[in-house]
Amino acid sequence: MPIITLTSDWGLKDHYVAAVKGTILSNMPEAIVVDISHDIPPFEIEQAAFVLRNAYPNFPKGSIHILGINTEESDKFGHTVIEHEGHFFIGTDNGIFSLLFELKPDKIVELTINQDSDYFTFSSRDRFVKAAVHLARGKKIEELGQLTNQLVEKSLLRPVIEEDVIKGHVMYIDVYENIITNITEDIFKAARKNRKFSILFRSYEIRKISRSYTDVAPGEIVALFDSNGNLEVAMNQGNASGLLGLDRKDMIRIEFS
Amino acid sequence: MPIITLTSDWGLKDHYVAAVKGTILSNMPEAIVVDISHDIPPFEIEQAAFVLRNAYPNFPKGSIHILGINTEESDKFGHTVIEHEGHFFIGTDNGIFSLLFELKPDKIVELTINQDSDYFTFSSRDRFVKAAVHLARGKKIEELGQLTNQLVEKSLLRPVIEEDVIKGHVMYIDVYENIITNITEDIFKAARKNRKFSILFRSYEIRKISRSYTDVAPGEIVALFDSNGNLEVAMNQGNASGLLGLDRKDMIRIEFS
Amino acid sequence: MPIITLTSDWGLKDHYVAAVKGTILSNMPEAIVVDISHDIPPFEIEQAAFVLRNAYPNFPKGSIHILGINTEESDKFGHTVIEHEGHFFIGTDNGIFSLLFELKPDKIVELTINQDSDYFTFSSRDRFVKAAVHLARGKKIEELGQLTNQLVEKSLLRPVIEEDVIKGHVMYIDVYENIITNITEDIFKAARKNRKFSILFRSYEIRKISRSYTDVAPGEIVALFDSNGNLEVAMNQGNASGLLGLDRKDMIRIEFS
Repeated sequence: MPIITLTSDWGLKDHYVAAVKGTILSNMPEAIVVDISHDIPPFEIEQAAFVLRNAYPNFPKGSIHILGINTEESDKFGHTVIEHEGHFFIGTDNGIFSLLFELKPDKIVELTINQDSDYFTFSSRDRFVKAAVHLARGKKIEELGQLTNQLVEKSLLRPVIEEDVIKGHVMYIDVYENIITNITEDIFKAARKNRKFSILFRSYEIRKISRSYTDVAPGEIVALFDSNGNLEVAMNQGNASGLLGLDRKDMIRIEFS
Repeated sequence: MPIITLTSDWGLKDHYVAAVKGTILSNMPEAIVVDISHDIPPFEIEQAAFVLRNAYPNFPKGSIHILGINTEESDKFGHTVIEHEGHFFIGTDNGIFSLLFELKPDKIVELTINQDSDYFTFSSRDRFVKAAVHLARGKKIEELGQLTNQLVEKSLLRPVIEEDVIKGHVMYIDVYENIITNITEDIFKAARKNRKFSILFRSYEIRKISRSYTDVAPGEIVALFDSNGNLEVAMNQGNASGLLGLDRKDMIRIEFS
Repeated sequence: MPIITLTSDWGLKDHYVAAVKGTILSNMPEAIVVDISHDIPPFEIEQAAFVLRNAYPNFPKGSIHILGINTEESDKFGHTVIEHEGHFFIGTDNGIFSLLFELKPDKIVELTINQDSDYFTFSSRDRFVKAAVHLARGKKIEELGQLTNQLVEKSLLRPVIEEDVIKGHVMYIDVYENIITNITEDIFKAARKNRKFSILFRSYEIRKISRSYTDVAPGEIVALFDSNGNLEVAMNQGNASGLLGLDRKDMIRIEFS
């Protein structure tokens, strides 16, 4: 049973999500449609990429992921299908794909199949579903368009790694107001070399990385690697982002000594 | 596999949506249940009708749509099942059906099957699901109650079409604050007769209908026919409704010259 | 087809819900995953228990319910699987189970199966799904760990029943701002003994229990037993909680005379 996931900024109030699901089921009644999130802030492709990047590896290989954000095609931004590590991604190459993958994805195709409607504002319903159903029926990605090596590049803020310091950034604030950074456990371990460390942001300093929120008392600050391996700053049962005044793109440093 | 959709003002915080889904699955484990929206503003049947009208045609024929808004039965408002163009609709005849269809629907039945619970505040769980499962198992609509020709009439604001002007209204503001009107592409084309036109609302004037949001620069106003054929006024990556001060039921005119 | 439900405080904005669904589908593609609610206020296990308690009996026996709230394991709070009246529940024994069931559940097991990841902040994805899939494949609950009789006890506010009065509390405010109390129809009937009654809260008094909201005019106060048998105070098409100033844990009395 083919899995098709949806990530978008459509919200849940309007008819958009249901229109896409109905179109999928009309073309492929056996499809399993799963919402990644529809509450991406409008037009925020970095947030959409973060959410999908942390969700899709949990799905089985062969899953097809539709990206319904900033989908209008233009001279600059084409409709694109990507195959990467056994997953498929369909969306508009507005930079989101460069934010989604660490490395160049395995295959990139400029979508050339026609859409069925005369309207150009709802590509997810009118074109991406068609491509998804083709893939779900076993068509090769090459049959959907032209192979290419080009992707629009948007630069994800990457941590800067120096001899005695990692300079990272806040990537995402989650529903609990936990602060998720772009410093991964792998980066930290490679740079640390058994030295002592201080995690520094604003006027705060943390000298320990915990395993769980409850390693500290309720209301206290804790640093840990989250369930995807990213360094996270949180408060046990509190709202770290609001209370610490730390927001997306703010800097966070780890100094070694 | 039968498809049952849900449209309601129950929100997603409480147990109501899950209670209905559990009841469906208890009676028909193979049903595919799809949410249209549960974020209809409380008691707003016009909004519910708008959302479902724009979503349901995307579903396959044979789909069954439960309308879970203002469902309490009364002397004035009975429980009703409708068959129209191959789709089924189950809800309370509080005027919502007259807002849902342009023309009188194919078949209207006053629901007479009993409900299973002693409570009368959750008809969707206790009566509509039962009717839906009957239909999904292939029962004819006539077996669920009494055929009738009557529907409670609520008047949808319809555009007024004169020789040189179409007077329409704002029907819906979506999550992007796009402004969706009741002037359709068909109405526009029939009235235009190759003349020039001006779209007028408040102190604004638009003389062009675009194909996509990105036909104008970010922050600029654009008029286009949306993916369901309704005239829409939007701002490329902006919030048209808030910024233009245009809200539901406000007037919008198209003058021909 | 096994049904796995999810109840959590993860919200719908982030990747958490999708990560769990993807993990389920990776391990059991034929599973039917149903959201109970993900909009439980953060860390509010009483609210989570209320919502699940009102939803799960509608699901077929054999359903497996994952409780994704305050899931971190600790010396005080272990991971637990429960079988009760044919349903299965997987979560952390932080008191939520004592709030979920009136009586001691049929079987309680301390979960001992290993989790697959090195992270301890996302037990729902990394351990509860594994337990759920075992149960869905037909394993006995005893194979997942050690049988026990102990549960962490959190005291649910229970109504106090005296000769001439029932003293109850507000348990939950729903999306319509209806006020749901812990006084059930059974308790009321047993205590009433055909006497007259007054429902009293703040400076209000209601002397009648209605069958439906529309038994009173729009904007008027109505008392009724809700679709799960709990006494509810509502306003026909109005927001009772806000307008009457009645909130969770406030007292409500029924006096008999």
